[in-house]
Amino acid sequence: MKKDEKKHRNISELGEFGLIDHITKNVKINHKNTIKGIGDDAAVIDYGNVCSVVTTDLLVEGIHFNLIYTPLKHLGYKSVVVNLSDIYAMNATPKQITVSIAISAKFTVEHIEQIYEGINLACQHYNVDLVGGDTSSSLTGLSISITAIGESKKEDIVYRNTAKKNDILCVTGNLGAAYMGLQLLEREKEIFKANPGTQPSLEGYDYILQRQLKPEAREDIISLFDEIGIKPTSMIDISDGLSSEIMHICKKSDVGCKIFQDKIPIDLNTEKMGKEFNIEPLIAALNGGEDYELLFTIDINDLEKIKDYKMIHPIGHIADKEHGAVMITNSGQSIELQAQGWNQLKDEE
Amino acid sequence: MKKDEKKHRNISELGEFGLIDHITKNVKINHKNTIKGIGDDAAVIDYGNVCSVVTTDLLVEGIHFNLIYTPLKHLGYKSVVVNLSDIYAMNATPKQITVSIAISAKFTVEHIEQIYEGINLACQHYNVDLVGGDTSSSLTGLSISITAIGESKKEDIVYRNTAKKNDILCVTGNLGAAYMGLQLLEREKEIFKANPGTQPSLEGYDYILQRQLKPEAREDIISLFDEIGIKPTSMIDISDGLSSEIMHICKKSDVGCKIFQDKIPIDLNTEKMGKEFNIEPLIAALNGGEDYELLFTIDINDLEKIKDYKMIHPIGHIADKEHGAVMITNSGQSIELQAQGWNQLKDEE
Repeated sequence: MKKDEKKHRNISELGEFGLIDHITKNVKINHKNTIKGIGDDAAVIDYGNVCSVVTTDLLVEGIHFNLIYTPLKHLGYKSVVVNLSDIYAMNATPKQITVSIAISAKFTVEHIEQIYEGINLACQHYNVDLVGGDTSSSLTGLSISITAIGESKKEDIVYRNTAKKNDILCVTGNLGAAYMGLQLLEREKEIFKANPGTQPSLEGYDYILQRQLKPEAREDIISLFDEIGIKPTSMIDISDGLSSEIMHICKKSDVGCKIFQDKIPIDLNTEKMGKEFNIEPLIAALNGGEDYELLFTIDINDLEKIKDYKMIHPIGHIADKEHGAVMITNSGQSIELQAQGWNQLKDEE
Repeated sequence: MKKDEKKHRNISELGEFGLIDHITKNVKINHKNTIKGIGDDAAVIDYGNVCSVVTTDLLVEGIHFNLIYTPLKHLGYKSVVVNLSDIYAMNATPKQITVSIAISAKFTVEHIEQIYEGINLACQHYNVDLVGGDTSSSLTGLSISITAIGESKKEDIVYRNTAKKNDILCVTGNLGAAYMGLQLLEREKEIFKANPGTQPSLEGYDYILQRQLKPEAREDIISLFDEIGIKPTSMIDISDGLSSEIMHICKKSDVGCKIFQDKIPIDLNTEKMGKEFNIEPLIAALNGGEDYELLFTIDINDLEKIKDYKMIHPIGHIADKEHGAVMITNSGQSIELQAQGWNQLKDEE
């Protein structure tokens, strides 16, 4: 790889989203059955009777997971779940996955078995077929690439770019817990490094650890939509933090929004951990990521239909673009949301 | 990642194919539209009017490519081509791809642009839509994961496991050139290491270099089958060397075969390079890999239809399983073929 005389820009100048925009700006779609390409949780291919919904993720050791505290079985499980979450975010049902793994010499057959135990468990739990993949060597560590394929009728698919003024913004479950789990694991790692004899003190933290190490995808919400006859007007899964996902919906839909701090669902365990760690739980919810909850908008007339479901939380509404994407704090201040997102590419500086 | 007290086996004990067999032996298929799972060039999903054919590959720096001598644009192009080759090997037409890339801090925006230039060029050349993907950091180098999605009518799809006795075994193009190209590049790398001032002497080797650095997939052959009304009885692409691919067809189809040394197509450039490097071109053809030609069987009654096409070479025929998979040498000896395959996992020892 030679550096030629042309100016070379550091990737951090663009950031992750900027880089993706930059490299995909010239991409052309030629097949008329490609009804959604880059720019949503998944691509959509129309096969006539049904649409196929396709998403892919590449997880790399040291970036997306740390094997010091991630059990391999959990890693296999989570690798599948994060992809299925993208399929559900299209209001589709995952049916198949492929798994490619690159492994270095430090891994044994039993390690690979543990990863596949987790993968198979997720396949069972979500009723998904493992249909293909690839296993190869790596010089330096573990990489896992998963592609998930789902199905939906064309008219049922929900995109990011179709939210409209006055729609109600909702999130499922609660936010920020996975981030708190990660902070706990990182703390214990540092303590262990300083005193290799110590045992990690993880008792009483089951919930936030489970949210970080073994998250679940919101299959139940997609089933519920079907059951109660709701089609969200837009949807995205929360992998990079609430702020970032709200910004995606607003940008793609060309709208603004107003959300309310006191409506953002945060679990008691997350609050408790926040106090202990001196991390504002709200920041964890807005920018932490890895919650794998769903963020969606519904027509205001559908609000009645969801009001009895405790796992769905209306947090605000869609507004004109001119209003921006703002959060009204508990003290009544209006704060512009920041797409903190996932800044690994910047962290490399 | 803890080593527990259970016995841990080195992956090299199983080898690549053994490892894949081992980890996939418990995989169950639950959806009736998954008509082919693991075990062919691609998985097949039935959508009623049409089937979707899906394949994926994960390419890792230092294992599948060496950036010392691989131009990034070529790497992008080749990464797409190796996946499309798997789609053609199912007698299907590729339509969409997704691309995930993990990059370390040594890469600039311009480097990524070069990779995507190659990816976009391949998409144009093969009329494929880039529909999704992922970009993330890596601590150690470049990984590229591509999933290709193709289409075919259910009745047109060709599998590995359907070769039958007396079918004619054919290969397209010529074999062993990509391996010779790799040897040349490796030699120049060593010379450069010893004398960093020297320029590589690659003149006159265009053909074998192109076969290694910028291979093409056999779209033309799939079109030809359609044109002349042939459906192969089995097919596979040659990524790991002729021997290995023949063994796959024989094992999956539960048959044996007899091929003839003097029928194996080897280009004059490959012969010439073989002499220079003291590498038997036949060994490069049998075990070299990365040719991305097609190996297929046809009913003996179809032999007439292909005889005028110079890019198709009948090399032998399918026999009863009891005869094994053998090659008759020019001196009349019968040699059992060995599935040398792709032994990176063993090389790690």
